[in-house]
Amino acid sequence: MAKFQAPKGTRDFYPDQMAVRTWITDCWRRVSVRNGFVEYDGPTFEQLDLYRVKSGDEIVSQLFHFVDRGGREFALRPEMTPTLARMVGARAQGLPKPIKWFCMPPMFRAERPQRGRLREFIQWNVDILGENDVIADADCMFVIIDMFRELGLSPGQVELKINSRALVASVLTIAGFPEDQLDPVYAVLDKRDKLPGDAFAEAIAELTPDKRQQETLVALGSARGPQGLESVRKLINGNEPGLAHHQDLARALDLLAAMGVGEYCVFDMGVVRGLAYYTGIVFEAFGKGSLQRAICGGGRYDKLLAGVGGPPMSGVGFGVGDVVIQDVLTELSLLPASIGQTDALFVIDVDPKLFERVLSLTSELRGRGVAAVYSYKRQSLVKQLKQASTRGAARAVFVDRETADRDVVGVKDLGTGAQASIPVRALLEDPYQAIEESA
Amino acid sequence: MAKFQAPKGTRDFYPDQMAVRTWITDCWRRVSVRNGFVEYDGPTFEQLDLYRVKSGDEIVSQLFHFVDRGGREFALRPEMTPTLARMVGARAQGLPKPIKWFCMPPMFRAERPQRGRLREFIQWNVDILGENDVIADADCMFVIIDMFRELGLSPGQVELKINSRALVASVLTIAGFPEDQLDPVYAVLDKRDKLPGDAFAEAIAELTPDKRQQETLVALGSARGPQGLESVRKLINGNEPGLAHHQDLARALDLLAAMGVGEYCVFDMGVVRGLAYYTGIVFEAFGKGSLQRAICGGGRYDKLLAGVGGPPMSGVGFGVGDVVIQDVLTELSLLPASIGQTDALFVIDVDPKLFERVLSLTSELRGRGVAAVYSYKRQSLVKQLKQASTRGAARAVFVDRETADRDVVGVKDLGTGAQASIPVRALLEDPYQAIEESA
Repeated sequence: MAKFQAPKGTRDFYPDQMAVRTWITDCWRRVSVRNGFVEYDGPTFEQLDLYRVKSGDEIVSQLFHFVDRGGREFALRPEMTPTLARMVGARAQGLPKPIKWFCMPPMFRAERPQRGRLREFIQWNVDILGENDVIADADCMFVIIDMFRELGLSPGQVELKINSRALVASVLTIAGFPEDQLDPVYAVLDKRDKLPGDAFAEAIAELTPDKRQQETLVALGSARGPQGLESVRKLINGNEPGLAHHQDLARALDLLAAMGVGEYCVFDMGVVRGLAYYTGIVFEAFGKGSLQRAICGGGRYDKLLAGVGGPPMSGVGFGVGDVVIQDVLTELSLLPASIGQTDALFVIDVDPKLFERVLSLTSELRGRGVAAVYSYKRQSLVKQLKQASTRGAARAVFVDRETADRDVVGVKDLGTGAQASIPVRALLEDPYQAIEESA
Repeated sequence: MAKFQAPKGTRDFYPDQMAVRTWITDCWRRVSVRNGFVEYDGPTFEQLDLYRVKSGDEIVSQLFHFVDRGGREFALRPEMTPTLARMVGARAQGLPKPIKWFCMPPMFRAERPQRGRLREFIQWNVDILGENDVIADADCMFVIIDMFRELGLSPGQVELKINSRALVASVLTIAGFPEDQLDPVYAVLDKRDKLPGDAFAEAIAELTPDKRQQETLVALGSARGPQGLESVRKLINGNEPGLAHHQDLARALDLLAAMGVGEYCVFDMGVVRGLAYYTGIVFEAFGKGSLQRAICGGGRYDKLLAGVGGPPMSGVGFGVGDVVIQDVLTELSLLPASIGQTDALFVIDVDPKLFERVLSLTSELRGRGVAAVYSYKRQSLVKQLKQASTRGAARAVFVDRETADRDVVGVKDLGTGAQASIPVRALLEDPYQAIEESA
């Protein structure tokens, strides 16, 4: 068997690891639901052409793809947007707007595995469709911060950098950059934080020989926070579309401040996101201090759905993987020690003649939603207690002569050692209440 | 976009459908945990050879398989057992026995889709490893019945047919059937309920010309319930291994009766299960009456893990798909109407000037775990209320002059229409409590 292992870049989730994964996905689901999103899902594989339409033939080598016996080509989903576009497209008329959907399925990439980038991972996708107003952007960004709050990540540990792709485009256009030069400029701005000061200046010099354009790029590169936002307003110089984008961005920041999470948020002109399909506000969450890493990102994509063959519908959304969240929580020691612990009762027959009572009591407890287990072996009290500890049970329940005579069981807290007698009827009526009252 | 649909045999889960799926998997998880199982998971795809080892080259055509850029062959998992064997094998020594694991991942089959058999489906897998005693079989079968109890399926609607492959083999060996003829006999017995009386007799006549052997098969074919179990004991005629298998089976039924679920269980010699790897007790759950269909099945497989390259370890387990459970619950109208309903609060600004208060209140409610949403448009009270209904919110919360002046909000139950005033502080301290008390 040693010859077989999980494929490189995929993971085995033993119960301990699965408990962490479930803890994270439960957090995502909880945050999604309380922010008014409903869950959806699609197939694990889609027609290969669905991805070709969005990303061209180059994408194929990055996908796990296969044919069925009928020769149809399929690929394991590398991202959710094409599926989302397809599903919303099929029912665009009937769905009340805004559409607030989330999912957290496994995704697949055929690339070489590296730190933090696996071939299979779980991705939380959160999207708001059908609302053009920047309030949707704010509501969407709030979800990331609400996740941070839920995970115990403070504004000192993480921040959400916010920018507007449309605003950057306006500034560059006003400064005289032709449209076909915007993408290379985005790429340089996006790399700013990874480049030493000189390298950034050199990259700018390569983009344009024009001194004033170079100055604009330097100003953009350093625009951050409220002062940065103000300096960008000056670069716009009264240009109408530019001002509108500026106002949208300022309003998004105001809305987040009104929601009480302004501390997490910062305007940062250096965030433009690599993906070409973003049309408005873009954002990226970063780990500060010792973390120093991107956590997740997203933005507004008003042409994307139509671009992948879906309906013409505006949208804003983000995706975040389970690997980075687990890494961040591990580094900050924020994964609770209680993960994976159960509140199971281990039901013990003090005398093997009472085993049938163990079975019936266990069955009744389970029927009332209480986790209850028992030893498969009729063995001494001490050995059964030891098994209860090994299995991580919270409490032992003793079925003994008292149980037979007076319908009372002994309950022992395996953490504190505290013991009490509880009538079976009380235990079955409201087990946790009965245990608490006896404590 | 109409050209793209979900691949044939796979499903789009729109929010309504996803809510049903989640309701079913939540039930599975709840039942698993209260029966003392812990969750695990493996990769969505495995090395193709892992399946070849178990099932030979024939299996390949039933799998979705592909190669990566390095030429390695992989397949989407069609079942969990090879992954389970691989994972347990890698840590066999370190895991305390019995190993009680469950999972509920998507599975894939490259076959032609038909009613109830899809190319992608969710399967709940429940396994107990490392315990030879029949008590593990009983504990495993109990999980199926506990699911039935949880889903509201009564003994009048479903039953668990229980048999022992080892016992059948003993009876056949005693009757003089050579070992290489057992599989064809199993096949005929397994089909008994699908064959009219004459066809069953004809199939028996084809198996053997020997009148006494034919009588044995007829007796086996009709052995059902306590009387059937007694008649089989006579066929064993004192043979020692046969008696041991008979005792095991009788004990499993006794244990289930002691757990209070005997009503669901029936001995049925006609259940032998198609899969060759079962070595002991086998079982199948059936829908009775108008349902008349197999729901799920499993059994003991003491040689399987070693057979797929895992450790020599006994096991008993079952699998059940989401499709059949949903079909059964739909047919019996057992899916609660409340599935997918939310208890969300829709926070409304009676005056658009108060919108910032809507935002801060929504944010605070979400931070306390309460689902809270608001309209993206500043519009009339009536329009906002209408949107709240469309989105299925449970209650509207009015932010009005009272809120500004005295920090009190109006709360309206959108179902009953009942209205009350609640101090914001009380609402935030314990929202559901505050709402209930105000009712």
